[in-house]
Amino acid sequence: MIDRTVRVGLCGLGTVGQGVLALLSEGGETIAARAGAQLTVIHVATRTPKPDVDTGGAKDSRDVFDVARDPDVDVLIELIGGTTVARDLVVEALKHNKHVVTANKALLADHGQELFALAEQQGVSLRFEAAVAGGIPVIETVKASLAANEVTSVAGIINGTGNFILTAMASEGRAFDDVLAEAQALGYAEADPTFDVDGTDAAQKLVLLASLAFGAAISSDAPYKQGVDSVAPEDLEFARELGYRIKHLGIAKRDGDALQLRVHPTLIPEGKAIANVDGVLNAVMINANGVGELLLVGPGAGSRPTASAVCGDLVSIAGALARGETPAAPSMSVPVAKLDTVPIADMQDVSSAWYLRLNAEDKPGVMAEITTCLSEQSIGIESLIQKPDASASADVPVIILTDIATTRSLSAAVSAIEAMPSVVGDVVRLRVENFH
Amino acid sequence: MIDRTVRVGLCGLGTVGQGVLALLSEGGETIAARAGAQLTVIHVATRTPKPDVDTGGAKDSRDVFDVARDPDVDVLIELIGGTTVARDLVVEALKHNKHVVTANKALLADHGQELFALAEQQGVSLRFEAAVAGGIPVIETVKASLAANEVTSVAGIINGTGNFILTAMASEGRAFDDVLAEAQALGYAEADPTFDVDGTDAAQKLVLLASLAFGAAISSDAPYKQGVDSVAPEDLEFARELGYRIKHLGIAKRDGDALQLRVHPTLIPEGKAIANVDGVLNAVMINANGVGELLLVGPGAGSRPTASAVCGDLVSIAGALARGETPAAPSMSVPVAKLDTVPIADMQDVSSAWYLRLNAEDKPGVMAEITTCLSEQSIGIESLIQKPDASASADVPVIILTDIATTRSLSAAVSAIEAMPSVVGDVVRLRVENFH
Repeated sequence: MIDRTVRVGLCGLGTVGQGVLALLSEGGETIAARAGAQLTVIHVATRTPKPDVDTGGAKDSRDVFDVARDPDVDVLIELIGGTTVARDLVVEALKHNKHVVTANKALLADHGQELFALAEQQGVSLRFEAAVAGGIPVIETVKASLAANEVTSVAGIINGTGNFILTAMASEGRAFDDVLAEAQALGYAEADPTFDVDGTDAAQKLVLLASLAFGAAISSDAPYKQGVDSVAPEDLEFARELGYRIKHLGIAKRDGDALQLRVHPTLIPEGKAIANVDGVLNAVMINANGVGELLLVGPGAGSRPTASAVCGDLVSIAGALARGETPAAPSMSVPVAKLDTVPIADMQDVSSAWYLRLNAEDKPGVMAEITTCLSEQSIGIESLIQKPDASASADVPVIILTDIATTRSLSAAVSAIEAMPSVVGDVVRLRVENFH
Repeated sequence: MIDRTVRVGLCGLGTVGQGVLALLSEGGETIAARAGAQLTVIHVATRTPKPDVDTGGAKDSRDVFDVARDPDVDVLIELIGGTTVARDLVVEALKHNKHVVTANKALLADHGQELFALAEQQGVSLRFEAAVAGGIPVIETVKASLAANEVTSVAGIINGTGNFILTAMASEGRAFDDVLAEAQALGYAEADPTFDVDGTDAAQKLVLLASLAFGAAISSDAPYKQGVDSVAPEDLEFARELGYRIKHLGIAKRDGDALQLRVHPTLIPEGKAIANVDGVLNAVMINANGVGELLLVGPGAGSRPTASAVCGDLVSIAGALARGETPAAPSMSVPVAKLDTVPIADMQDVSSAWYLRLNAEDKPGVMAEITTCLSEQSIGIESLIQKPDASASADVPVIILTDIATTRSLSAAVSAIEAMPSVVGDVVRLRVENFH
């Protein structure tokens, strides 16, 4: 019935690539009906042969550039990862007028503007739903559904590994290293988990999401990063006692003419739905002038969820081709040349409420001295708890929730507190976002 | 800079229509940059003049058909409501080759197939994101983002009035009528709240969502409906004690070759995120073979959230027109002629766990007799609680959670229980969905 065929080239047959083949195979005629075209993978490429993967008789190359140059390929799916060969591959594909779908956030965070501009110039589509929050359709939501909105903030749990670790630490009281080892054993964390732990992965996704939401050209090193490893089990426990959960969030927020971009552990009131998104799930909360607040929750990684997003982009391109259109809407909603150059807010100027944890000698006058350090910086105190110490040692943990203060003021107060002879060690500080 | 103009006709200047004007005005150049075209409302029509509404100098008609026939109008927005004039209006607009955006779920539930087919025939677009779950982009998610998925179920809180009522009843222990009166006073419920209360509104939205998700032609009276007024304050309280919340859900689910379509109060485990979506918020949970489970939460009604969805559709159409394309993707993802005729599952055959509440005399043997009525229908019992009665009356409430059973078996057991001399009055029965 449907005689139009859209021919797909697939570069990379790892977990996501195999998910793409599985979904296209399972969806078969249903997908063809929706696209108005048969979607056929005609050419795959992997560095080493993958004889166990059924590619349905597709041509099999060792050189990914063979796919980019294959005159029969309409759409190239880039799933090889990395930012060097992947960049050259996407450039080559675009230059050969292929439409491109990628799940590669690192590539787009580093080279997105160049690649998006090239796609525009060639009159082809470069789509990347899978690059942010895996199976959650956050890119299309911001780009299409909220096209008539001014976004004021986005805040997301956009690294599943980090959320898995925090959830397990919170529910089982386990230490960071212990849970990280489990996450690696389960395949949630990479062998080298640096980018999951230090916030780099979340920052790359935040850059893409914020660029789109705010129509801004943002460099990949713009976000401030505080890693998920800065949270101790006792912080999760104390936060819970205070009615909060701690999540590792990527936050982008308008702040006057500037844009706040930050990735850090965040205390969130337990009543907010995003505070209760646990395990490897991702979630993105969007605030905008029209819709108000939206929350999207779902799997942020994994073979089939990521493939779902890749194939959603693919079907969209195929549908346009089948209708005889040129699917060339700009990747970033507006042409790259129209992206604003927005100043990034200095983190020293960024305000929030704060959670502080410190150890202090349990003797008269110490609490008064600590509160004086805060009040000298005009920082109000929301609550202050001195925990009784079961071990009857000389030091007791002190937990403080402050009112809104800039990083600069807070740092000055913390320096003064740390200089107190009766305060032992460093002060732990985490941001609190009430999202109201 | 952008010289292409897309000319909009707006029929209806009620709360949503005014929201559309507000968002287009506030978004101005940003929206134009995203669409690649200026969006200009050139013609409005309302039955009675609305001199207080600033329409930016648009032509103002009393007859909505003037807009449908206006040769300068590219896109008509239908916000007049109802299913008679609105149907004729959309037909007239499509026949004049206008693209149409509507928020009218009743219209599309009743006449969708006719109108979608006409849009296809005319080669124009008929879009309706705002018709289901207001500002939540659930239509685009199912249609575009999940295009490569086989959806297995959708379950949603898709009537904000009902959710407001249940939430207030649960948190404040108030009676249904009392909260309904408040909802009316706050403007959440209509003067005639029948369709919100009896599930008709939710059923209309479910028909649209299920048609799209399952590629099926579904008649508007297909869903089973049990109203939100079938929940008593004590049910909300008992459910909570058992670890559940009660939400009024629209559920569409594959069941062999058939499709379950049902709208009813539902007990949901408190740990599921959708169980904690409160107040007037809507939420839609989608399960599909690729992505797994997605949850979308946001405002399901209101001027600006609904306008956000209308304008998202509008910008999408405008963007295609600006790129010289014909935005004519089928409304239901596949052409109407390709929608399947799927049998709707007989509710008697539909299985779920059940919550039962009854009043029984507090004497030996009664519990044994009740459990016998259930076991004779092969219905297992998950838990059974006999509440002590503070008033020391002869009857005490008995709460039962059953294992999975069909409506037919359950009804037979309930009839037997109601026939017991020691059981007073009717047995309250509500479905339990564990969603795992």
